Amino acid sequence: MRIAQVAPLIESVPPQAYGGTERVVSYLTEALVEMGHDVTLYASGDSVTSARLVAVTDRNLRLNPQRPDWVTWHTIMTDRVFSDADRFDVIHFHVDTLHLPLARRVAVPSVTTMHGRLDLPDLQPLIRHFREHPLVSISDSQREPLPWANWQATVHHGLPASLYSFHPRPGDHFAFVGRISPEKRVDRAIEIAIACNTPLRIGAKVDAADRLYFETHIEPLLEHPLVDFVGEIDEAEKNDFIGNARALLFPIDWPEPFGLVMIEAFACGTPVISYPNGSVCEIMEHGVTGFVAHNQEQAIAAARRIGEIDRRRCREAFEARFTAPAMARRYLAVYRGLIDTPPQKPEASGGAHGGEDSDRRQVVRRRDLSPY
Amino acid sequence: MRIAQVAPLIESVPPQAYGGTERVVSYLTEALVEMGHDVTLYASGDSVTSARLVAVTDRNLRLNPQRPDWVTWHTIMTDRVFSDADRFDVIHFHVDTLHLPLARRVAVPSVTTMHGRLDLPDLQPLIRHFREHPLVSISDSQREPLPWANWQATVHHGLPASLYSFHPRPGDHFAFVGRISPEKRVDRAIEIAIACNTPLRIGAKVDAADRLYFETHIEPLLEHPLVDFVGEIDEAEKNDFIGNARALLFPIDWPEPFGLVMIEAFACGTPVISYPNGSVCEIMEHGVTGFVAHNQEQAIAAARRIGEIDRRRCREAFEARFTAPAMARRYLAVYRGLIDTPPQKPEASGGAHGGEDSDRRQVVRRRDLSPY
Repeated sequence: MRIAQVAPLIESVPPQAYGGTERVVSYLTEALVEMGHDVTLYASGDSVTSARLVAVTDRNLRLNPQRPDWVTWHTIMTDRVFSDADRFDVIHFHVDTLHLPLARRVAVPSVTTMHGRLDLPDLQPLIRHFREHPLVSISDSQREPLPWANWQATVHHGLPASLYSFHPRPGDHFAFVGRISPEKRVDRAIEIAIACNTPLRIGAKVDAADRLYFETHIEPLLEHPLVDFVGEIDEAEKNDFIGNARALLFPIDWPEPFGLVMIEAFACGTPVISYPNGSVCEIMEHGVTGFVAHNQEQAIAAARRIGEIDRRRCREAFEARFTAPAMARRYLAVYRGLIDTPPQKPEASGGAHGGEDSDRRQVVRRRDLSPY
Repeated sequence: MRIAQVAPLIESVPPQAYGGTERVVSYLTEALVEMGHDVTLYASGDSVTSARLVAVTDRNLRLNPQRPDWVTWHTIMTDRVFSDADRFDVIHFHVDTLHLPLARRVAVPSVTTMHGRLDLPDLQPLIRHFREHPLVSISDSQREPLPWANWQATVHHGLPASLYSFHPRPGDHFAFVGRISPEKRVDRAIEIAIACNTPLRIGAKVDAADRLYFETHIEPLLEHPLVDFVGEIDEAEKNDFIGNARALLFPIDWPEPFGLVMIEAFACGTPVISYPNGSVCEIMEHGVTGFVAHNQEQAIAAARRIGEIDRRRCREAFEARFTAPAMARRYLAVYRGLIDTPPQKPEASGGAHGGEDSDRRQVVRRRDLSPY
């Protein structure tokens, strides 16, 4: 199949720093190439791939000191993708929504994976306006704010099978990995570890936006002798950082769209203790790959009995459900569905598109204006 | 002629607060309707027009407390405009560049007026990528960073002839109108007024971004007894505020793309003292509508002899060159040129577009990647 993958330009593919979307695009792209597909990746020029790379920018936008305007470069990328459209059987976007006006005017099927949270107020009218556009969610729970959208499937993220290795015998500590931010609740993780009298190693970055929260709410907690804050860790360090932990503590307090670190833990054989928010209950199997707790009392009790979890079952869950080839196969099924049964598109370039939207269009004249 | 005018959604048309672009779109739209054309205005729903209004949002984005995402709403607007394209002979955009990928795929001619400064680094590759798209500049000097773009014309801004009234007998003070910011150089205006022992009335707003500059550099200067800082003034106040001044001081220090306040002054019969930056030498006639000074010494000398300028000549210059009907006639000539000789567009939806850009496209594989 001739497939275009369209990645954000903010980070390279794979990312040089933090960038969950760019990591997933990389894993998917490499898995599709491995399976023999003809894949073209639109991404920043410092991306590294075995697919055909179309370098839209010399390098990723985030690390460019000139602070390029992302709208400008994604506009150019959108144009280039659709200029090449007849070379592809399907176009897969991972870059929000700038492409939607063109997607509805071009015959080749396209699909967009929504990588972020969907409860932002402007997404409702935007997705409703382009409601024929096929979307993929990264968890079922992610869809909740937009249940009426044209969802084709939920495709959970996957990792290359050998990216993390099974760690059968962990050390005697817990791990926390991610950002320090109010919704990630590292404070809960610290409380759980202290209640269990178990060391906690924290591998986490602090974004500028979360600096004040870190200094006022978290830094005082780091003085406890059981807590070891090691700062940001890179991909290579993660394998042992997570794999050597008895459990990954993931006591989130927000609608996490996916939560890559959970499946990274499973890949290492490390069980997870989490809260039932966002995707968690789809990714976790309570009692098999860890425990889902509704409050701190339950979380602490779960952490105390984490030894009951068989780490091999965690790795098996990863291999069965969360590898990159598994993700690629699910996306291929989506692509085939779109090629076999293309969604009805509004009339192409120039024509009025029909349907509810045109009917709802308000055409008002001066005398009709309400005093806003 | 069936004309679409596409305005920014940031402010209503005309704007309720500061918004030079939205004011000009309003003046142009009303002038075209007055001349008998069939005009459709795409704008926020709180706009007021005698054209057909397509309300893309309920109200302007700037005053909406939910702080809507401008990219989302301009994406929706772009789609709606092109869905209606076959209802128009020409589409005139005033909203930057989100529409360029669609514009090249739709048969109806479109043109974009660039309302801002063009020396931003990302504009070069963007306009080069879409280099067939017809552009209009608001001054010749504005074009300097992009001389190779597909410029159709320079169309200077115009005001309704009766918006400001001729003030034959001014008071004995100077006026400064605009933003307080380093590039507007109100400090120069204060120095000129003090050197002439002439009162200066300052009608100006201070943006949040310029607050520190205002407090550290400008506020101390306002204590001088000749200086009267009255804060932001509205459109209705401007007529007498500018008209009663002996001169408008406009000693700018940046490449002003147009400078509406200069022609507002001319409309009142008030001469202008300015510096030769940006559009100034196109708008001003040195010795006729005021003086262009290269330094403060010249500016002070010019201010002392401002009585030599015949205020009727200022009003005549306005009536001859800077009315809204004059602006509308120039735009109509641009529209007719595009309808009679449509610019060559790259192949429409889906196809590869030809030309230099495709040739320069870098398709690189892993082994070709330079270590960035």
